[in-house]
Amino acid sequence: MTSSKDHNNAGAGRVVISVDAMGGDRGPAAVVAGISRSAKLNPEVDFILHGPENDLSKLVAKRRILDGRCTIRHAQDVVSMEDKPSQVMRHGKATSMWSTLESVRNGDATVAVSCGNTGALMALSMIRLRKLPGVNRPAIAILWPSRNPQGFNVMLDVGADIRADATDLLQYALMGASYARNGLELKRPRIGLLNVGTEEHKGRAELKEAHDLISAHAEKAQFDFVGFVEGGDIPGKTCDVIVTDGFTGNVALKTGEGTASLIGDLLRQAFAYSPLSRVASLLAYTSLKRLQKRIDPRRVNGGVFLGLNGTVVKSHGSADAMGVSAAVKLAFELARSGFTDRLAARVASAAELDQDALGQKDKNVK
Amino acid sequence: MTSSKDHNNAGAGRVVISVDAMGGDRGPAAVVAGISRSAKLNPEVDFILHGPENDLSKLVAKRRILDGRCTIRHAQDVVSMEDKPSQVMRHGKATSMWSTLESVRNGDATVAVSCGNTGALMALSMIRLRKLPGVNRPAIAILWPSRNPQGFNVMLDVGADIRADATDLLQYALMGASYARNGLELKRPRIGLLNVGTEEHKGRAELKEAHDLISAHAEKAQFDFVGFVEGGDIPGKTCDVIVTDGFTGNVALKTGEGTASLIGDLLRQAFAYSPLSRVASLLAYTSLKRLQKRIDPRRVNGGVFLGLNGTVVKSHGSADAMGVSAAVKLAFELARSGFTDRLAARVASAAELDQDALGQKDKNVK
Repeated sequence: MTSSKDHNNAGAGRVVISVDAMGGDRGPAAVVAGISRSAKLNPEVDFILHGPENDLSKLVAKRRILDGRCTIRHAQDVVSMEDKPSQVMRHGKATSMWSTLESVRNGDATVAVSCGNTGALMALSMIRLRKLPGVNRPAIAILWPSRNPQGFNVMLDVGADIRADATDLLQYALMGASYARNGLELKRPRIGLLNVGTEEHKGRAELKEAHDLISAHAEKAQFDFVGFVEGGDIPGKTCDVIVTDGFTGNVALKTGEGTASLIGDLLRQAFAYSPLSRVASLLAYTSLKRLQKRIDPRRVNGGVFLGLNGTVVKSHGSADAMGVSAAVKLAFELARSGFTDRLAARVASAAELDQDALGQKDKNVK
Repeated sequence: MTSSKDHNNAGAGRVVISVDAMGGDRGPAAVVAGISRSAKLNPEVDFILHGPENDLSKLVAKRRILDGRCTIRHAQDVVSMEDKPSQVMRHGKATSMWSTLESVRNGDATVAVSCGNTGALMALSMIRLRKLPGVNRPAIAILWPSRNPQGFNVMLDVGADIRADATDLLQYALMGASYARNGLELKRPRIGLLNVGTEEHKGRAELKEAHDLISAHAEKAQFDFVGFVEGGDIPGKTCDVIVTDGFTGNVALKTGEGTASLIGDLLRQAFAYSPLSRVASLLAYTSLKRLQKRIDPRRVNGGVFLGLNGTVVKSHGSADAMGVSAAVKLAFELARSGFTDRLAARVASAAELDQDALGQKDKNVK
């Protein structure tokens, strides 16, 4: 691996993002186009780009904006969408994904961005960056278009792990609150716990336990806990952060995406139906564009891995230049706000609080 | 149990639906308007209507189409949305909901329809109609707008129970296949099992077990098993029936509804944005209406309770006349196709198959 001794880019308020050029469905050209776009929009951002040097240097050379702002780190192998996480963990040292995380691990970059295989990226992140002290299961958080003034809600976990016990759900609440504070600039985020009804007696046992745990931590962790919420509240305005296990969160995310995509297609069909409706669609063009912009998944591209020593942004596998650029923007904002350190502090203080609570419990038992 | 010897209403191709007039958000007037609409559309349908006789007879008298086709059964009490199922089970004998189920229980009607409290309706249905032999957990199935030629997919369970083990999921597959055959006229429905990935090694242990069980029953039960599907396949065209536990299904349903509703509102906002966009919306009116019709939840109103001795259709609490009429139409179609008996036969034959399979397993163990 290249030494980074003489790497000075991060000085003077500059932010360095480590970007995996490979593993996305559209190949490295889309990634380079995406980071060029970001470089134009954010003058303070620099890149370390990982992948086959020959291919990448040609692509980067074509983009003048990247002159002196993009270091290439050679990695010959690529993690494919079909690779099993366990294989990548054992044999993935020469992959661009491994190299991308390495730049965050050794402090050359603040945040990593990859369009690659989610399972492999999470598995590698866990072994290379390691979990934050006090975190049992890391989580993937996403932004979801919502009725709230900030335009988006945070939901986690959307698929890092298929299980979550009450303590995990508490940690998701803490991490989600921290993310909402740094990513959406909400001073006092409202947290909801996903369930099949809002009555306190409903749902699985671990949810009732999590309800009490989160409620007990709300004051100290400076968030409001609105209690149980339902699927309809994910795009709603009842809360800003929706906490759930990775199985339920993943199904909800994909159901929402699938529904939005179906409606989009039906809308196109409706406007293509007759000559009159085609004229109408021309007139309605800017209105429809405005709607599309509001719910375009490319504009909120990026699941964030929370609970690790370092922040990783997972871009959609099918991301184009705009999608990659949105993921980089998110990475940039999180890096600039010192998110990783803030999150670590939050989780650590909650772990202390838990020790206190346990002590208290012991006393009560006595 | 009332004897059904002298029960002639169902003669000569007529179908009797038992309808709970109370418990919906819009009161009995919306229900009576809904059944009038249905009576016009389906000359073969008759009704037994349950609720306070004085109020109902006035409402029914105003609708000429209901002359001689609507019997009123007096019930003074109403199950409210806040009532706990356990209370209703103990003290609910005088409610319109209880009375509605009683008409199916004693054979006066084939299918029951109610807009009331889902939890109470399921609890009452379980104790009054009882589970089909071989069914451990009944399920609620809904129709979901999809990319398939039939326009809808079936998903179950969407909230009858928050748990489901592998055998329950198998029964959901069998019941869902039967529903798709009778409700959507699909000869050989394709069944998918909801998971967080389509690879066979992914997901919870009970899902892997259910995968093998459903796969083993596919041939005999005359459906195709497509294996694991994801949230995006619920409105998709990969399968016709999506099988999942009631917790996940309920979250998915409400997430989909919430997302569709948000997009609808944003679409309205987009078209109200400027004078030009308002003109565009006028021209686009019929196109937008066409879309709305396609995804209007009122047109596919009705969760069906499966796995009981009798079929119960749960209409949305907020259903208006069109919503009630859609629920009645669904009830009518299921009644006419002899759905209850067909479903019972399917489940019974699968239970036998299971006995066989268990016998086989025992042999293998020896």
